[in-house]
Amino acid sequence: MPRLLLINPNTSDSVSALIRAEAERSASPGTEVEVLTAPFGVAYIETRFEALIGAYAAAQLAAEHHERFDAVIVAAFGDPGLAGLREVLPCPVTGLTEAALASACLLGQRFSIVAISQRIRAWYLETVQSCGLASRLASIRGLDEPLADIGKVQDDQGERLLRMAERCVDEDGADVIVLAGAPLAGLARSLRGRLPVPSVDGVSSAVRHAETLAALRPGKATRGSFAPPPVKPHRGLPPAIARLLDARR
Amino acid sequence: MPRLLLINPNTSDSVSALIRAEAERSASPGTEVEVLTAPFGVAYIETRFEALIGAYAAAQLAAEHHERFDAVIVAAFGDPGLAGLREVLPCPVTGLTEAALASACLLGQRFSIVAISQRIRAWYLETVQSCGLASRLASIRGLDEPLADIGKVQDDQGERLLRMAERCVDEDGADVIVLAGAPLAGLARSLRGRLPVPSVDGVSSAVRHAETLAALRPGKATRGSFAPPPVKPHRGLPPAIARLLDARR
Amino acid sequence: MPRLLLINPNTSDSVSALIRAEAERSASPGTEVEVLTAPFGVAYIETRFEALIGAYAAAQLAAEHHERFDAVIVAAFGDPGLAGLREVLPCPVTGLTEAALASACLLGQRFSIVAISQRIRAWYLETVQSCGLASRLASIRGLDEPLADIGKVQDDQGERLLRMAERCVDEDGADVIVLAGAPLAGLARSLRGRLPVPSVDGVSSAVRHAETLAALRPGKATRGSFAPPPVKPHRGLPPAIARLLDARR
Amino acid sequence: MPRLLLINPNTSDSVSALIRAEAERSASPGTEVEVLTAPFGVAYIETRFEALIGAYAAAQLAAEHHERFDAVIVAAFGDPGLAGLREVLPCPVTGLTEAALASACLLGQRFSIVAISQRIRAWYLETVQSCGLASRLASIRGLDEPLADIGKVQDDQGERLLRMAERCVDEDGADVIVLAGAPLAGLARSLRGRLPVPSVDGVSSAVRHAETLAALRPGKATRGSFAPPPVKPHRGLPPAIARLLDARR
Amino acid sequence: MPRLLLINPNTSDSVSALIRAEAERSASPGTEVEVLTAPFGVAYIETRFEALIGAYAAAQLAAEHHERFDAVIVAAFGDPGLAGLREVLPCPVTGLTEAALASACLLGQRFSIVAISQRIRAWYLETVQSCGLASRLASIRGLDEPLADIGKVQDDQGERLLRMAERCVDEDGADVIVLAGAPLAGLARSLRGRLPVPSVDGVSSAVRHAETLAALRPGKATRGSFAPPPVKPHRGLPPAIARLLDARR
Amino acid sequence: MPRLLLINPNTSDSVSALIRAEAERSASPGTEVEVLTAPFGVAYIETRFEALIGAYAAAQLAAEHHERFDAVIVAAFGDPGLAGLREVLPCPVTGLTEAALASACLLGQRFSIVAISQRIRAWYLETVQSCGLASRLASIRGLDEPLADIGKVQDDQGERLLRMAERCVDEDGADVIVLAGAPLAGLARSLRGRLPVPSVDGVSSAVRHAETLAALRPGKATRGSFAPPPVKPHRGLPPAIARLLDARR
Repeated sequence: MPRLLLINPNTSDSVSALIRAEAERSASPGTEVEVLTAPFGVAYIETRFEALIGAYAAAQLAAEHHERFDAVIVAAFGDPGLAGLREVLPCPVTGLTEAALASACLLGQRFSIVAISQRIRAWYLETVQSCGLASRLASIRGLDEPLADIGKVQDDQGERLLRMAERCVDEDGADVIVLAGAPLAGLARSLRGRLPVPSVDGVSSAVRHAETLAALRPGKATRGSFAPPPVKPHRGLPPAIARLLDARR
Repeated sequence: MPRLLLINPNTSDSVSALIRAEAERSASPGTEVEVLTAPFGVAYIETRFEALIGAYAAAQLAAEHHERFDAVIVAAFGDPGLAGLREVLPCPVTGLTEAALASACLLGQRFSIVAISQRIRAWYLETVQSCGLASRLASIRGLDEPLADIGKVQDDQGERLLRMAERCVDEDGADVIVLAGAPLAGLARSLRGRLPVPSVDGVSSAVRHAETLAALRPGKATRGSFAPPPVKPHRGLPPAIARLLDARR
Repeated sequence: MPRLLLINPNTSDSVSALIRAEAERSASPGTEVEVLTAPFGVAYIETRFEALIGAYAAAQLAAEHHERFDAVIVAAFGDPGLAGLREVLPCPVTGLTEAALASACLLGQRFSIVAISQRIRAWYLETVQSCGLASRLASIRGLDEPLADIGKVQDDQGERLLRMAERCVDEDGADVIVLAGAPLAGLARSLRGRLPVPSVDGVSSAVRHAETLAALRPGKATRGSFAPPPVKPHRGLPPAIARLLDARR
Repeated sequence: MPRLLLINPNTSDSVSALIRAEAERSASPGTEVEVLTAPFGVAYIETRFEALIGAYAAAQLAAEHHERFDAVIVAAFGDPGLAGLREVLPCPVTGLTEAALASACLLGQRFSIVAISQRIRAWYLETVQSCGLASRLASIRGLDEPLADIGKVQDDQGERLLRMAERCVDEDGADVIVLAGAPLAGLARSLRGRLPVPSVDGVSSAVRHAETLAALRPGKATRGSFAPPPVKPHRGLPPAIARLLDARR
Repeated sequence: MPRLLLINPNTSDSVSALIRAEAERSASPGTEVEVLTAPFGVAYIETRFEALIGAYAAAQLAAEHHERFDAVIVAAFGDPGLAGLREVLPCPVTGLTEAALASACLLGQRFSIVAISQRIRAWYLETVQSCGLASRLASIRGLDEPLADIGKVQDDQGERLLRMAERCVDEDGADVIVLAGAPLAGLARSLRGRLPVPSVDGVSSAVRHAETLAALRPGKATRGSFAPPPVKPHRGLPPAIARLLDARR
Repeated sequence: MPRLLLINPNTSDSVSALIRAEAERSASPGTEVEVLTAPFGVAYIETRFEALIGAYAAAQLAAEHHERFDAVIVAAFGDPGLAGLREVLPCPVTGLTEAALASACLLGQRFSIVAISQRIRAWYLETVQSCGLASRLASIRGLDEPLADIGKVQDDQGERLLRMAERCVDEDGADVIVLAGAPLAGLARSLRGRLPVPSVDGVSSAVRHAETLAALRPGKATRGSFAPPPVKPHRGLPPAIARLLDARR
């Protein structure tokens, strides 16, 4: 039975609760999920600088806790730190964005992303581009007013988000809607049947894909660009990160 | 418990047996898998014309049998007929290529495809391009001699395929190896531990991803380009296909 | 004097009549044209699934009749079956889309496609992408109401189509207008002088380019990805298709 | 009966003779062809700077002579000046590269270019890129020694060019060979039957496509980016060019 | 102390004055700048044909005068003749577009271009594409009415240009504004503090980058595609251009 | 006189010394440069995980020290943390990669990167891709043996690096060579005259471009994706980073 670690690189406990709830709802019978919240950083990541901080926080949590788990999930859209962690962790690692996009690509040709703010769109666009999937992106739309409470955005803004999704389909040509960001975890589930196209979210996709990777046991890279970094001098690092860098597999 | 239909658009029963064996090995407990073989077509599809035939054969089988299943898999690399079936079937549909590429994208940045013939490479390249993933493709390599027995290619050519995969990593920069084509179903499993990077195949990926799609219940498109085709006059079609076209959802 | 076979993969005789009329108007003196209508399929192809059926119908007609002709034209926009037929037929083959795009590319840098429905746009977009010409596509616009009579769309909707074309120029930056789909065959001719940029259609382009290919005699591939498929076992195929697969050139 | 003007932007009369001979062989019955040689410039264009000069020379010849013709062809690979002439001339204009690529795209998916020098490859690559066709380019190969006589390169280097073409097919994955540059005019014809894939050249393609454009009468842009330039002050220009700029259509 | 030659390929002395003023304002202490105006051509270049003429005029001026300078700047947006001059001149050469885009790329991820006319947009788009930077282009917006006086466009249209720039940021997602075209030289400076994102113009960028290239002394290509063209016969060329072609370095 | 802060995200003092020496050699008269070394991290960054750590170390140093400077340079190839810092710092920020690529793009069409290890190539490729410049990349070549002393790689491996650069030109079609990575700072200078094409390095390019940005004063984004992040709750951050996030501009 796989044990999955979900790391919330945001510092919001309310978002971690949303992640945990949706992870438990979407996990297969027998899968164990645990959610950890970043000990430092910002309440919710919208920008490249905030993602830089979140990546380092995620790396620390992953370094400290990964050994008890079969797979690790970076539980913020934008996947801060994901590629780096894939080099150093011995188990599969995925993130909300790449997992949601993988699901979306299995459901249609072009997808749109519905997000919680205008500002976040640039960072999401760059994430889609670094996934090599820009040609399948129909649009990214975001809420255009400040959020009163990040943990309640679904309740407060549910109808707006639904209308944005419909415009993605009717005006932008989306075949699939990606409801993006950990604060929207579970929204795809609660909107089920109200959207004109398939919809996915990051948490449920990541949980299911992590289970799949744990089950298929595809192997860890020992050569190539995702092999562990060459051993070399380092200094001043948290002990868990230092151990990861010194590990020889 | 999800019931999955795998359609082999090739006419080779020996390949269907490979597909069935790997599908059963990779399915979650409780998942039921059934494999059907194309009633007409060629022994194994390597070219665009053969894929055109396979697509129509797959469409007929899907039309006739889909109602008993929770998801359908087009079980040939190149995914003949997949996009069309996604429009007309009420359940999720996937194919070996898009499923294997989705897995590969969760394991590294660039993937190579190892295939059973030189000729098949052009068709595979076009399939990757139509998935929008050409920027993540490191290379496609294929065996360069005619196959004595398509059902035994793994036994006959296993070591050669392994060496090709190593060259994909060392010379082409692959982070992940995709072992392509239904005749290689199960090879990723039997090579486990012998490759320097993660490897995936189409059948196990497709089975797992189909389970995920069945579990997440993302919904069927009622608008957009994957909604069922508009009702219109038709003639001369097999009854099951005619029924699909006339269905109103 | 070249003899050209135009295959209408739709089942509409009224569309075949439009195709025949425009083919005869645009052919060089001495060229013979013949139009055949698909014996099975749908009235007009707008979706990927309908194109899958049309491709198989076109393949059967081509297999049965190609021997009397110097070139074959798949006479539906979207070119169902074209790439496959290019592998197996000994003569040049082209299709309405690739022929119209070739003409458009000789007349300006960016082109727009004007089409008969909203739904058809996704399929056309994918056709342009598989031609590798997405960077020259300014836009695809389509009529937004159901067609009363596919054979009379030019009469019924001529002014609307003209206005759509003008918006392609003024809002989307098109240098050339492609009037797309066999039901619009001849419209470029009848709008002559009323559009602010050059316009082309598929039938006249395909007829002229097929004449050119027949005249230049560029040769049939005996190696590479458009050589005939390797001989291999097959079963259950219509005799004419089986003969094509068994032919050794 | 169309009258075609071919402008050789090189100053080599021997190359003009090759162009004339192939143009006459490939033209339809009744078509008249005339070839003019640049009054200034270099013997054969291989670089961007030489193309800049050739473009201006071609512009002067076109401005002086176009009125007697139904279409104009810039008869050097690389198409120096083509896009500019398309803005100002009232008749269709094409060039050897875009015409040969249009033919190649009707014969296969990926093409290679065989050229007369190594140096010329960068300029050709940029020409293919500005045609938006880089994704269909398999390779560009060029002779690697200085040419003794540009007018006799076919005789002197025919076998080498043939072997280069074969490597394009076998190593680079080309479906079609483009024999590039006016000095190779006619080579596709004389190699007929000796190449494993279809081959095209620029002169015969351009002549045939120019006939097609003259016959289809697609119209001249009056709006958009190929409309004639806005009237504005100018000075110091050759009278024929000044007349083109002052013309109001 | 570097001496910079700025060549205005337009014939407008008023634009040359704008260029000179901004070049002097932006040059480092000690840098000498000289501006030459095209002896033939059009008042301001907006189209491909006008750029073709401007390229030849720029080439003549560069050939005649470059020897006294450490770097040469083609001082029109669109960089007419730049790539060719880079082959033949012994010193660094840059142009307003590539220099402004280089600055823009150091200030943000996506840039918009604000231009003086609608018509000019197509040529600018193609310039950005030939720089390989289309993926970083957010939009190109242009004034939509004829200019009364090209030398006074900043005074006459300053507020409109400012509003266009704001729409580039708010609607198109621009991180940086490029104020394009020599007639806008100095506008970035005078709008300083009024735009919501960094802004750059071509003249100041080109002057500074030319100083950098002169200082870094990166070397002149002796091999590859920017080496001087191979020596070969030529005829009818202005003496200075002939000398450039005959020079052996 | 501009004051420039160069942040070495590696922990190697010997590399900082190389950076300082080249920065001083390449700076304009009067420019002040200061180099700071990461207080934690690895000796030299080759992988995504190491870059993640370096980004956070660079962010801390920048947050603490930026106020005394007119521009900040992230002095490692791969530019760890650059995009994030551009959001939060009030002054211009650049990095070795983007600066070197900007220089390279002003010197030719296609560039190759010569690097200090094989492993580092994947990270560099992704950096070039995120700069949107993949279409101008000819190749990335790297030394293929472990480095004895990162601070002496130029002495130990100079001739090998030179031969790699020549292969980039002759085999890969490079017009410009980028000597990549802080450990190669100054190599372009010492190889001057020995390479067949222009060569640039990151430190000298970054210093000069930072001077340019400081001089042009293009403005700081107050809207768009490089505006400072929205103010929001955070916790556990180093005081200097917290101040950056709380700053209101």
